[in-house]
Parts: sequence; C-alpha cells; structure tokens
Amino acid sequence: MTISSKYYPSEPAKPSVVTSSVPGPKGKEAIKELSNTFDSRPAYFVADYDKSLGNYIADVDGNTFLDLYAQIASIALGYNNPKLISLLDTKEMKNAIVNRAALGNFPSKELDSVLTKILKVAPKGQTHIWSGLSGADANELAFKAAFMYYMQKKRGGKDVPFTEEELASVMENKAPGSPKLAVLSFKKAFHGRLFASGSCTCSKPVHKLDFPSFDWPHAEFPYYQYPLESNEAANKKEDDRCLKIVEDLITSWEIPVAALLIEPIQSEGGDNHASKYFLQKLRDITLKHGVVYIIDEVQTGVGATGKMWCHEYADIQPPVDLVTFSKKFQSAGYFFHDPDFIPNEPYRQFNTWCGDPARMIVAGAIGEEIVSQDLLSHVNKVGEYLFGKLETLQSKYPKYFDRLRGKGRGTFIAWDLPTTELRNTLLSKLRLNGCNVGACAETSVRLRPTLTFGEKHVDIFIEILEKTVKELL
Amino acid sequence: MTISSKYYPSEPAKPSVVTSSVPGPKGKEAIKELSNTFDSRPAYFVADYDKSLGNYIADVDGNTFLDLYAQIASIALGYNNPKLISLLDTKEMKNAIVNRAALGNFPSKELDSVLTKILKVAPKGQTHIWSGLSGADANELAFKAAFMYYMQKKRGGKDVPFTEEELASVMENKAPGSPKLAVLSFKKAFHGRLFASGSCTCSKPVHKLDFPSFDWPHAEFPYYQYPLESNEAANKKEDDRCLKIVEDLITSWEIPVAALLIEPIQSEGGDNHASKYFLQKLRDITLKHGVVYIIDEVQTGVGATGKMWCHEYADIQPPVDLVTFSKKFQSAGYFFHDPDFIPNEPYRQFNTWCGDPARMIVAGAIGEEIVSQDLLSHVNKVGEYLFGKLETLQSKYPKYFDRLRGKGRGTFIAWDLPTTELRNTLLSKLRLNGCNVGACAETSVRLRPTLTFGEKHVDIFIEILEKTVKELL
Repeated sequence: MTISSKYYPSEPAKPSVVTSSVPGPKGKEAIKELSNTFDSRPAYFVADYDKSLGNYIADVDGNTFLDLYAQIASIALGYNNPKLISLLDTKEMKNAIVNRAALGNFPSKELDSVLTKILKVAPKGQTHIWSGLSGADANELAFKAAFMYYMQKKRGGKDVPFTEEELASVMENKAPGSPKLAVLSFKKAFHGRLFASGSCTCSKPVHKLDFPSFDWPHAEFPYYQYPLESNEAANKKEDDRCLKIVEDLITSWEIPVAALLIEPIQSEGGDNHASKYFLQKLRDITLKHGVVYIIDEVQTGVGATGKMWCHEYADIQPPVDLVTFSKKFQSAGYFFHDPDFIPNEPYRQFNTWCGDPARMIVAGAIGEEIVSQDLLSHVNKVGEYLFGKLETLQSKYPKYFDRLRGKGRGTFIAWDLPTTELRNTLLSKLRLNGCNVGACAETSVRLRPTLTFGEKHVDIFIEILEKTVKELL
Repeated sequence: MTISSKYYPSEPAKPSVVTSSVPGPKGKEAIKELSNTFDSRPAYFVADYDKSLGNYIADVDGNTFLDLYAQIASIALGYNNPKLISLLDTKEMKNAIVNRAALGNFPSKELDSVLTKILKVAPKGQTHIWSGLSGADANELAFKAAFMYYMQKKRGGKDVPFTEEELASVMENKAPGSPKLAVLSFKKAFHGRLFASGSCTCSKPVHKLDFPSFDWPHAEFPYYQYPLESNEAANKKEDDRCLKIVEDLITSWEIPVAALLIEPIQSEGGDNHASKYFLQKLRDITLKHGVVYIIDEVQTGVGATGKMWCHEYADIQPPVDLVTFSKKFQSAGYFFHDPDFIPNEPYRQFNTWCGDPARMIVAGAIGEEIVSQDLLSHVNKVGEYLFGKLETLQSKYPKYFDRLRGKGRGTFIAWDLPTTELRNTLLSKLRLNGCNVGACAETSVRLRPTLTFGEKHVDIFIEILEKTVKELL
C-alpha cells in the first residue's frame, strides 16, 4: 500500500480539467470579485479546498489538478490529511485558535510538548528553538540573535553591562547602541520581503523596488554545470571563485559582517545548488572571521530533498549556528544549539505572541508523520524514480530540459527552458492538461510536490509533461 | 443578563489564589522545564487554558486570576468563547488549519467572505485590506505600501516604468532603485521589533540594543497634564510644541520622510494619549508635505477604547491613508482606502501565505460579535463605571494613582505610581491577590481587559486593588 493510498483512499485517479481555460469562468468571476478586497492579480485559480485531496487540488470550476507546487512548496503531507484534520478535535488546537496565548508571558502547559515534538526533527546539532510567523520573520529573528551574539562577543561576554552611551544612542537609532552591522547573503538569494530580510534577497527587482534597504553585501553563488558527475573540476573551480568573493567581502566590506545567510539550494532564485564542499568551506571562513553562519531552510527543509534538512547532505562540521524554517512546517522559526544565542537578558528576543501555537501544533504533527511513516525514504525513492523519467525526457527533448538538477535530492528537482516565454507557456499548458507546477528564476521549472507524492503520480505527471512538451514543438 | 454571563454562564464568581507565590511550585517547575526549549524567563505563570473562562485565566498551580491584561491586550471576547469554539467545527477553519493556502496564488473560495467580514468593521473611510501575521509585520507591510506610493507619485504615476538604473541599482541595495526614505515616528512609540518597525520603536533600549537600524527620526509625542478638563491650555501648547517638531523634522531630515506613523494612544510607551487636535493637525501637515499618514491601531484597535478604532474619536478629515491592526483581532494587517496604494504591478506586495486564513476567520468572527452584541456600548458603559471607581481611589490614595488617564476611552485606562519598584510591587501583589494586570513604560499600570469585562468584574477588581494599595502604604 502506498503512502498516498494509505492517507487518501479516495484520492482521484488522475487530474481532470473541464474548462477550456484556467481559471475557468467561475474562477475568473471569483477573482474579479475578490479584487474588491484583496490584490487578486497573482491568483492562478480559485481553489476549492473542500474538494482537494492528497496530491490533487480542486478549483471552483470543477477542475482537479495534480499539484506539484503545493502552495509554493508549503504543503507537506497533502490536502485534507486525516492526521492533521484530527488535530481540530484536540483541546490543544482549541486553545491555540480560541485562546491565542502570548507565549512569552503566559505560556500554556502544552507549549513544552509542542516544541519538543518539533525539536525531535531538528537539524543535527541544534537543540533549541525560537518561533516566528513566516519565513521572513524567522530570518529576521535569526538576524537579531546573530547581532546580539556578535556584539556580546565583542563586548566581552554576557556579564558585561551596556554602557550609558549605548543605552542613550540606541534611542536615536545611532551607534554604538544601534551599531552598523551587516548580513552577507548571495546574489539570486531569496530570504523574504521585509526590510532586513529584503536587504538579503537578491533574486528579482520586483521584490525590492522603492524600498529602502541596508547597505549589505551579496556574494556570488556558484553556478554549476550539469550533470554534476561530469563537471567536477569546473564546478570545484566555480566554488573556489565564489568562496574567494565571500572572504573578500567579509574582510573588505565597510560595515562589519556579523552573519552569513545562505540557502543550501537557492529556490526562488533558480534552484541553484551549493555543494558539500562549498557549504563546509563557508563554515571554515565564518569560524575564521567570527561570522555567524545561518542556513535558510525555509523552502528546502522538512523533507522535500530526501533529508529532513537539506544542509544535512553537507554534514557541516562543526554544525552551523542557526537554521531557519517555515513553509512545509506551516510554521516558522529558527533552530540553534549554542546557549550563547539566548540573549543575556529576557525581553530582548520577544514579542506579543512569540509564534503561533496553532501552527506549531501542525508542525509537530508533520514532523511526527515524517518519522513514523518514514517519508524521507519514500521521498528518496520517488525522487530517484522521477529524476530517471526526467532524464529520459531530457534525452528525447534536450532543448526543453536543460540543466536538469536535483539528482539525489528527493523530489526537489528543476530544469531550464530556453526562454521565459517558453517556460511560462509550458506551465500554462501543463495546468490546462491537469498539472499545477511552479516556476523559479527567469527560465526554470521547479517541482515541489508534497512528501506523499508517489510513483503513480510520477507516471501521470511524466505522461502529461511529455504530451505538453510536444505541444511546444 | 450581562454579556459575560451570556457567553460564560459558568464563569468563576471571583478569583482564587491557592499558592503563596505566583508562579506556584508547579508553575516554577514547568517554567524550568520549558527553559530547555524556549526562553521562559518572561513567563508570569504557566497557564491552563482548558480551565480558563471568560475574564478568568487559570494556571497550572490551581490559581484563577481575574485577567485585566488578556495576553498583552490581545484577547477580545474572553477565554473559551463559545462563538470562537464553534469555528473549530467549520469547513473554513479545517481548510485554514490543514490546507494552509498560499492566498495570493491559490486563494480559497472562502477568502472573499472572510475579508468582507473584517472590512465590515474597518475604520471609517477604509475600504481595502492587506493581511499580515503580526503587528510588526502589519506595520512593515504598510511601510512598503507607503514607499511604493510615495515613489510612484514622485515618478509621475502608475504608468511610468522603472528605469534601467532603478532595476540595476536595487539589486545592489543602492539608490535610485532602493531609495533612502524615512518613516517618522515618535519618542516612546512602540511599533514592533523587526528592523524597520524597530527603527520606529522608541520606548525602551531593551527592544533595540545591538540591532542595526535605519536612520529615521523620532518626533516628540505630547505629554499631557491630567485631568484633561482643567489643563486645556497647557495641553494645547504641548500639542503645538510637538507639531512644530514634527514639521521641522519633515522639512529638515536629510532623508526624505515618506510616511508618518503614530499610535493614537502610545501603549507600551506609557498610555500617552494624542488629542483630536493633534491627530488632525498631523493630517494637515502630512497632506501639506506629501507624507503618507499611518495610524498604528495594533493595541488601541478592535473596541477596547469604546470605539472600534481609537482614532475615530479624532474624526480625522480627510481619513488617514493606512491603519494597521493586530492583537485583539488575533490577526494582523492594514486597511487603506486609496486604490493608488495597490502597487502598479502584482507581486510587489506579496509573500507565500499573504496572511493566515485561520486567524482571519477568527478576526471576522470577533468583528461580528462586537457588532451583534453591541460590545462597544458595553465597553463604554463599563469603562465609565471603572473610571469613576478609580477616581474615587485616586482621591483616597493620590500618590498611587497619579495621572489617571483614559476617561471616555472605554476600559483603556492607565495611571502612574511614584516609582518603577512600587509599580512592580503593586502588580506582583495584585497577582497574589487574584488580579493579573500589566505594566507599561517605567511607572504606569495599564488596564487591558477583554471586551466582555463587566461591572461585576470592576467591583471585584476595585476591591482587590484597594486592598493591595493598602498593603503598599
């Protein structure tokens, strides 16, 4: 019995598109209506979540799509998962929704067990958690932890009190209380769209135009030749080129670089992978220069790459300092292991809610299912099967499957088309043919199915994909 | 039948403290245990939300407190409100929790009706909504709207395309694509703790130390003499002094001021009220200088002041541009009325989730209850009763009730003690005597009960408060 038939005995056998356009007439009408209250221009279609099940998403026009995008890579187990539905009947969820606690001041008696569940699937070496509300929020909270840690070291330890000058100047947004410090990120990175996270984001102008930003540096992210096996020397050279830029920026940027932030696979920016060598060398460089090393696993985390956390493939030693998460946990926050990342005083890392208990309960349940159902093995097996099928398509239609990447990374797979227009046409036609698939960067297709996506779904997808590619020829 | 007995027929008749300290032994143990996964130093006690009801919060030691703090001013209707509990049985909530949608790309068919419910109680003149996840997030999303609007005007309209220079420079975090623009806020303000919102926050160093910030200005917020009726001339003079500082900063700050952000009552900063005159004059100044006017109703909004939105007392004309909310809606976002605040292109104001549908459903239900149960009239009546009782205590113990404020502002009431230590002692002893009450600024007590707090609760509170004040004598 497959995972998906176990969770979803009534899952549709295949997609079904009954309208001649997506969205169809009802969807178009709903999007127009919604525009009176909400910016509905980005809507692909209007979903009917009651009718969605497992790996299939339904819309208001009666269409049912096989979903390989999964709410921008954020649905872990599938739609209407029975384990998650059962959470609605628990006292814990009732309390979380109805009696939303200010968890810092008035923690619930359930909080510890909820956090412990999440920590059971924490990245190796990470023992503590701080919760937030979105991926951007998680990253910015991690920045705060990094800045406090960096300044504490500079100051000489937890016991060194703030000076009068620090206490006064910070109220004017001036140094030394509010020091000039930078986070180094990478070109093509995506870390969120608030102001500090946005200063680290560097994939498309649309995310950033007209917003003031911090004067923070972006290093170059390695751009590999594929397949990796036959391009090792060139890719190692590319790693070294980029590592030199990283170290040069750390030593030369006029604002001290307190933290380095990287996605193990740049996702929004084009599914650009970082090698084990690159990620380990960044550890060496950050240690050498006293820079906090933050891994952004917002999109790569929680199983889609075949490991719980993608950077575990690199087995970085010693472990990185902070790891941020969101999306597939349907919750957000960061992990850390060094108690020195707990500020010297309470209320420095604090806010009213300190996370959302409802979302934390869901995250804990998702973690439990991943372990109890051994979903990582499943994802690896399905990913290998899927990648093999895509290699076959690549050999038949090389122009439409350039730089196929993600081998050995579960179902976290992408490839390039010759142009943005062709990529967009492919995705539109795929939807008309029954598959909901996402884009990244200018010309890439990214696959982000749920963790319950199985070999039967692969077969359906590959058949539709080939049919759709033929329509492009 | 009172509101609270209608919702909560089994609400406790009075508080009950059975331990000799708060937290008691079980709470202390739970806080210690929790410290292994979470920063539990700010915990007042560990709550038992199953046993909490209406205006009473229970803890794991078997204590039951009358709650005038309500999760840092964020519980609107009371604990275990039956209307909110009934939401758990709806398909909408099931979808929101289990099938968390990326609302921008894949809006649910329910989204429009959820937003419409919230908009039914929008501030006068505000017709649109954009949803976020916390008060800080709401403010930063509003900043983004303000910056885009400001630059669009400067650029000459929605149709003027971005220049090549803008598109290139923004990727380097440089002008003109990433322009230097400022948000003007006020000393003692609290607007959140992310980096841009944190640059506007100015109430305590602990919120800001060691974090880089934007070089944004803080004007002075009027500091009134009480009672207001007998200090009109002095307070008007204070308003004019501060208005001059605002206008001077707008015209002289070296970074252009794109937006002005203000709480109608600075809450965390000490329950500092802004007069109708002051808030209207800010409208005049912002219009004169082309500055976007943002009202932060994160703490003051959703009924506690006796109006749905506190700034409605000022009847500002024309209406302000953006109004942010969170806390008592248990959801977050901003309202606006001018379609020019919708960016010229989609995806400029965007993120994966675009808000939390579960929290939006709760917000809509809270709004409906406030209207259908006429909770604003209730809050005004109870607030007047409470204020009268406090005036009596003030006349008996003037030293412990300095600058009593919030008359005519529902239950949104505060006063000052002579020192921080006395204030903290009062609050600790109040908890031991059965009342959970919050602090703000250095020496203030702030009352933030739920909207169902009634005259019977006032009587209990006033009796315990007087008893506790006598312990201080």
